[in-house]
Amino acid sequence: MAQKTTPDSTRRSERSRRAIYDAALALVGEVGYAKLTIEAIAARAGVGKQTIYRWWSSKGAVLLDAFLDLAEQAAEAASAGHDTVQTEIPDSGDLEADLKFVMRATVDEFNDPKYDAPYRALAAEGLLNPELGREFVEKLLEPQLQLFVDRVRRAQDAGQVRPDVDPRIALELWASPLAQRWLMRSGALTHEYVDKLVEYALHGIAPRPA
Amino acid sequence: MAQKTTPDSTRRSERSRRAIYDAALALVGEVGYAKLTIEAIAARAGVGKQTIYRWWSSKGAVLLDAFLDLAEQAAEAASAGHDTVQTEIPDSGDLEADLKFVMRATVDEFNDPKYDAPYRALAAEGLLNPELGREFVEKLLEPQLQLFVDRVRRAQDAGQVRPDVDPRIALELWASPLAQRWLMRSGALTHEYVDKLVEYALHGIAPRPA
Repeated sequence: MAQKTTPDSTRRSERSRRAIYDAALALVGEVGYAKLTIEAIAARAGVGKQTIYRWWSSKGAVLLDAFLDLAEQAAEAASAGHDTVQTEIPDSGDLEADLKFVMRATVDEFNDPKYDAPYRALAAEGLLNPELGREFVEKLLEPQLQLFVDRVRRAQDAGQVRPDVDPRIALELWASPLAQRWLMRSGALTHEYVDKLVEYALHGIAPRPA
Repeated sequence: MAQKTTPDSTRRSERSRRAIYDAALALVGEVGYAKLTIEAIAARAGVGKQTIYRWWSSKGAVLLDAFLDLAEQAAEAASAGHDTVQTEIPDSGDLEADLKFVMRATVDEFNDPKYDAPYRALAAEGLLNPELGREFVEKLLEPQLQLFVDRVRRAQDAGQVRPDVDPRIALELWASPLAQRWLMRSGALTHEYVDKLVEYALHGIAPRPA
């Protein structure tokens, strides 16, 4: 059976890159962003400091790529059994079912200890350091939210969402409560919870006219 | 004209207390929670360290009271022109109008630089320090959210919200997006924005049956 061949040097690079990401994510969860150093990442990853500096200019740049890679891995895991990685919200024609599917997968991700400490460290630093915060929002958060914008726009085309609704605001009704509960540890993160968020956001909490 | 008389010592205590709160809030915004010390608060407030230790056992305890006081001041400011401080969401009989009123006042508070740095420092520390975070949620955040729970319950009694809706989840549809935008600096905080959140939450984003 034919196998895709990869030159040895590329394979070595790939292995180093993954080791650096793992080290950066583990360390930021352990010591926080302020105390994270390129030296410590290199030592933990078992590579030379120069290897890191060849690819990235700062610890913030390493970490951002590590998180982007983590998000990609999560997308791959959620697509297990599918032929291609899902880089958009599924469109089954039923907006409510599709949003619940994605939000349940997101809950599972938030409940995974592997994500908790590094994400929390990055979020805390982003609160205090406007430059890092801006980069985090621009490169990591906003592209993910844009997938909801696209899906809501398609639902508007299909007549499932009112044409006057602003999709960028609408998505906050389900995405922000989950993020906030996770950040503040202010409530349980369950499938039932995100199902309700989606239901309330789509149909409102006021009585529907008979 | 008769004046309410206050013993000199009480007046002095009140003045010290307010100076300590102001110093704690200013300092946490400047240096962050980790570097905040009782000594620095005392020096900035112009009181002895003993004065602070007589009333509080830790910097976290000072700061929590300072934030509670700040929230009280904000409530007093919002009640200007009213006879009594509003400790609940107004009930005019029109839930949508009442929620918009409160959310607009909250936007104005978030946009006030006086609140921004200290709240941000506390939120960042609460992310990393679960004990402080829990205290923050329990004593500061949750009592404020409970006011929305009470108002939604009254709206349920009045037939303005469906009886099967969970008020503690419903309030997150308008409160969490605002908190999240402020934390992440991911969008403009305007009256128009919170009006839309309230409208979408009450009536949903799906078309209403004709």
